[in-house]
Formats: sequence, structure tokens, C-alpha cells
Amino acid sequence: MENVIRKSNKEDLPQILELIKELAEFEKEPDAVEVTLQDLEKEGFGEQPLFTCFVAEVKGKIEGMALCYFRYSTWKGRTVHLEDLIVREQKRGTGLGSALYKKVIEYALEQGVKRCEWVVLDWNQPAIDFYKRSGATVFENWNTVQMNETAMKNLLGKPL
Amino acid sequence: MENVIRKSNKEDLPQILELIKELAEFEKEPDAVEVTLQDLEKEGFGEQPLFTCFVAEVKGKIEGMALCYFRYSTWKGRTVHLEDLIVREQKRGTGLGSALYKKVIEYALEQGVKRCEWVVLDWNQPAIDFYKRSGATVFENWNTVQMNETAMKNLLGKPL
Repeated sequence: MENVIRKSNKEDLPQILELIKELAEFEKEPDAVEVTLQDLEKEGFGEQPLFTCFVAEVKGKIEGMALCYFRYSTWKGRTVHLEDLIVREQKRGTGLGSALYKKVIEYALEQGVKRCEWVVLDWNQPAIDFYKRSGATVFENWNTVQMNETAMKNLLGKPL
Repeated sequence: MENVIRKSNKEDLPQILELIKELAEFEKEPDAVEVTLQDLEKEGFGEQPLFTCFVAEVKGKIEGMALCYFRYSTWKGRTVHLEDLIVREQKRGTGLGSALYKKVIEYALEQGVKRCEWVVLDWNQPAIDFYKRSGATVFENWNTVQMNETAMKNLLGKPL
């Protein structure tokens, strides 16, 4: 059986969640994953799916995945954001990552968007090199800002 | 007439587009705005709106706006992304920015998300200070990566 890159279905979700947890360990935050199978099913396969996921299947097993969704740029309009691109450690270097990456770009073009975007950790040099080689641009002067639930609740009760 | 912070409607879009162009000038990219009124109307007020926009109205005129949409974190689930927060130059320092910011956080909590996020240019120190003071965390080690349409098309035709 050959490698297959295809859109995911509900039955893939347990293996997809495994991959998500594997990436969190790689990024040194194993306890950060709060998402459940039910949440993935609801947001990915409900009435108005929020995300689209592609998987790399080898001999019937999911060995990689790429999850993306739409964003809206007030400059460019609708864009595709690649949230996660994960390949199981023992399968890295076998071309699955590149195949998934191309699949997402192909999907973005099919959807008619003018831009595809994602983030990368500044210490992940192999990834940065790969993205640049593929034609992407890395912007080091945009910082990510996040506010968690506790901070959000605190904010509403106090003057700014 | 008092200041009103409210959800935008279609009739606000011409003034919203003016604000978008004003921000692009502030960020030294006046020609970067390709979005049209038709696109804003389609993506914000169509059958499945991609974004939600709030406006600050003073004496019947739109003096500020905050545009946000949902994203999907494979760690936290659905999040709210604040794409733009803009106040007309002559109205800065009058509290409209803070009021719009709070409105978005309030909306995010109403929607049940665990995180709100956005980006900031690393030279925009007043904004960084404001966000930190409000309880947000700034991550300097995540870099933004973008691929434009030409690069996407090129990628599909060549080996990686």
C-alpha cells in the first residue's frame, strides 16, 4: 500500500490527537493540550467546520497531519492559516511533511486565497530553512500576544 | 450624543475601510490594502460570516474599530483572534481604544473561548506596554511566516 495524502475524516481523530500530543512534547509543553476528541469532532466535522485537516496515511496508519483554517486579513481578504504540521518522529525525513505542506498550499490556491500563513519557533532552524527554501517569508518583527481566560476575566472588572 | 461601542453593520463598511487604510499608512504600507467594500460585505455579512467587527461611534461618526474572528488551537480549542484595533489619529487618547479592546475580550468570553490572541510589531512599544499592563503575554520567540500567491503557485510545480 502506498502513502496517501487525503482529507481527514472523523475516524482519524484519535490518531490525530496522538500527533497533537506528540508535537506538544516536542515543544516542551506536554500538559498544554486541553483539546478532546469531542472538541475536535465538533469543530472539525460539525455543521460549520472551523478547520480542515489533511492526513498522511502509510499502510493504514496515520503518520502525519496538517491542520488549517481560514483567517481574515483586512489587507488581503481571506487567507489560509496552517496551525499544525506534524509527522511522527520515526517517519521524519521520508517526504510526508513536504507532501502535507504541498497539499495545504494546493488547498489554499483552490480556495482562492492570496496568502497562506503560519508561525514558527525562532529556535527551529531546520523548519525556518525549509520554509524559506519553499518560497515563504519569515517576519521576525511581529510578536504574538495572548491573553488567557483568567486574564480576560480580570480585565473586565478593572479600569484600563 | 455619547460614545457608543457596538457591533458593526453593513452601512459602517465605507468608514471601516477608511480606518483600515489609515492603519496601513501608519504601518508604512499604504498600498498593501487590496480588500474592497464588496469583499468586506461578503466575508463579514454573508451567510457564514468569517469575522465580527465592533465600532466606536462618536456623534454619528465611526472613529474606531476592532475586527476579530475565530481560530482553532489544537491545544486550547476555539480562540478569538483580534486582527485590527484602529482609532482615528485625532481621537487617540480619548479611551475609544480601551473600550473597543474590552468589548472584544467581553465578546471572547461570551463565546466561551479560553484564549484571545493577536500580533504586535516589535517597535510599537506603547502598544506592547498597554497589552502587558492589561494582562496579556507577549511571545517574542514565535515568528510569523507568510507565503504569497506567486510563491504558492511556484511551489506546486517544483520538488521540495
